[in-house]
Amino acid sequence: MDDRIASSANPLFDTLVVIGPGLIGASVLHRARRDGTLARRLIAVDVNPVFRDRVRELGIADEVTGDAASAVADADCVMLCVPVGAMGEVAATVVPAMRSGAILTDTGSTKVAVIEAIKPSLRPDISYVPAHPMAGTEFSGPDAGFATLFDDRWCLLTPLQDVSSDSAVEAVETLWQRCGARTRTMAPEHHDRVCAIVSHLPHLLAFTICGTADDLADQTRSEVLDFAASGFRDFTRIAASDPIMWRDIFLSNREAILEMLARFMEDAQAMARAIRWDDSDYIVDRIERGRQIRRSLIGNHQA
Amino acid sequence: MDDRIASSANPLFDTLVVIGPGLIGASVLHRARRDGTLARRLIAVDVNPVFRDRVRELGIADEVTGDAASAVADADCVMLCVPVGAMGEVAATVVPAMRSGAILTDTGSTKVAVIEAIKPSLRPDISYVPAHPMAGTEFSGPDAGFATLFDDRWCLLTPLQDVSSDSAVEAVETLWQRCGARTRTMAPEHHDRVCAIVSHLPHLLAFTICGTADDLADQTRSEVLDFAASGFRDFTRIAASDPIMWRDIFLSNREAILEMLARFMEDAQAMARAIRWDDSDYIVDRIERGRQIRRSLIGNHQA
Repeated sequence: MDDRIASSANPLFDTLVVIGPGLIGASVLHRARRDGTLARRLIAVDVNPVFRDRVRELGIADEVTGDAASAVADADCVMLCVPVGAMGEVAATVVPAMRSGAILTDTGSTKVAVIEAIKPSLRPDISYVPAHPMAGTEFSGPDAGFATLFDDRWCLLTPLQDVSSDSAVEAVETLWQRCGARTRTMAPEHHDRVCAIVSHLPHLLAFTICGTADDLADQTRSEVLDFAASGFRDFTRIAASDPIMWRDIFLSNREAILEMLARFMEDAQAMARAIRWDDSDYIVDRIERGRQIRRSLIGNHQA
Repeated sequence: MDDRIASSANPLFDTLVVIGPGLIGASVLHRARRDGTLARRLIAVDVNPVFRDRVRELGIADEVTGDAASAVADADCVMLCVPVGAMGEVAATVVPAMRSGAILTDTGSTKVAVIEAIKPSLRPDISYVPAHPMAGTEFSGPDAGFATLFDDRWCLLTPLQDVSSDSAVEAVETLWQRCGARTRTMAPEHHDRVCAIVSHLPHLLAFTICGTADDLADQTRSEVLDFAASGFRDFTRIAASDPIMWRDIFLSNREAILEMLARFMEDAQAMARAIRWDDSDYIVDRIERGRQIRRSLIGNHQA
């Protein structure tokens, strides 16, 4: 998006409340503050007083509070940026306090479980638009946020019939586009399967191989660190992410992750069998597939 | 290494023969040509006339030939840079033609199998020093080579009693240091286990997950490409390597790779079980280990 156009646009909302200003939430606030096109007034809510102090010091919200219910009373849009496992509880506190006609949205990395957790709290006069900005770094907390985190990244929306009004979907889509993201809409179940293979399974494998290496005898383990550049290092980079966030993701996208992991394990067993029995054609064929995907990515200018 | 000191040093060898000037071999030749400290005369041998033409055009050897036996007749040092699976055959052609007192070395990524393949061809008057420069890119062939490939990378030497003379080990160590590498010596079996976990297993997992993704239904597969930035892309980067080279590595380091893969699979199954049964402590503990290894790497300035 052209920044000059963006900054001349009217604010999308009068009041935007971000609940849980961590990496994602603080980045939204940074962007909102920088461009002035998301909302006229920004409110940040966090249960943790240390985080509230940091948000105040960063100066990315007009108001910072621990009292979610009173913070959301006048909001046009309330964005839940808490860990996936906390979404249900936070929605139960927040939704009853929202004004009629307001929009509720979330930024959870899994959608089916988050929607299930939030649904019991919904009201017919509130539009709920589930969303998932696919952006992140290995850092977390308010200090990890920055205004350009979402530039050229995807934000997936999984609107629900009867729950997400067309105008609310449009507003949330515009919000993410003004954050710099490209948006796409899909069904929640499909979202969870796609994320299981592109994000959750790679993270699970990376965490696991780091654990496997950590279990090796001391001497070998120290050499793993010395010689990590030979492939292992790429895994540690994605294995450095926040444990609580990832625990919640694994547990809340259980079915899709277990399915993708089962497929992967079958394929890895087949590879092990080919290595054991010298099936060189099979090995080369599987390696070639990896290269094809890589070439497609380079074709997409994403590699 | 200070380049001014390096370039004032006497050449280590009079004649160095590189057999198989691909990514590794051509990079050694580039470095030798640039600094003049490896050998006074450089000979490149390749069975492929297209590669011979490219090496001539690159101007990185004084002589380029397809006749290995005559090329090595006067060499002080012969370096085998062919794929691991071809080492035995090439050694059988080359060693009988070498002059007494010369040094044979190789650059294979696995050591136990390469040593076994080369051993039957050895002569008591030839010193053989197995080596493994841990450097590479996703590209292959003579055009992939460049003079700085080995800068600050490791080269592991796995000398053998009765087969590697002290002076030959010292010469090969100096050769790699003059290529810019740090060197370390270890037993061949230990080398293969360390490489299985830091390099071979990560590559095997990366190839496998790319294959798993490629097997998904068309729509999901295209979305895997669109959303690859979320973790999957890190795997495709290391999955882009040369299939024949990796087939050879997998087959020639079979035992160590199957052992590491079995450990990994047990750990992945345990993670799957923890996800299925909601064992959140186990999940967090395993994720924390990955972060510890990452922190140790950052401490090592390698991350």
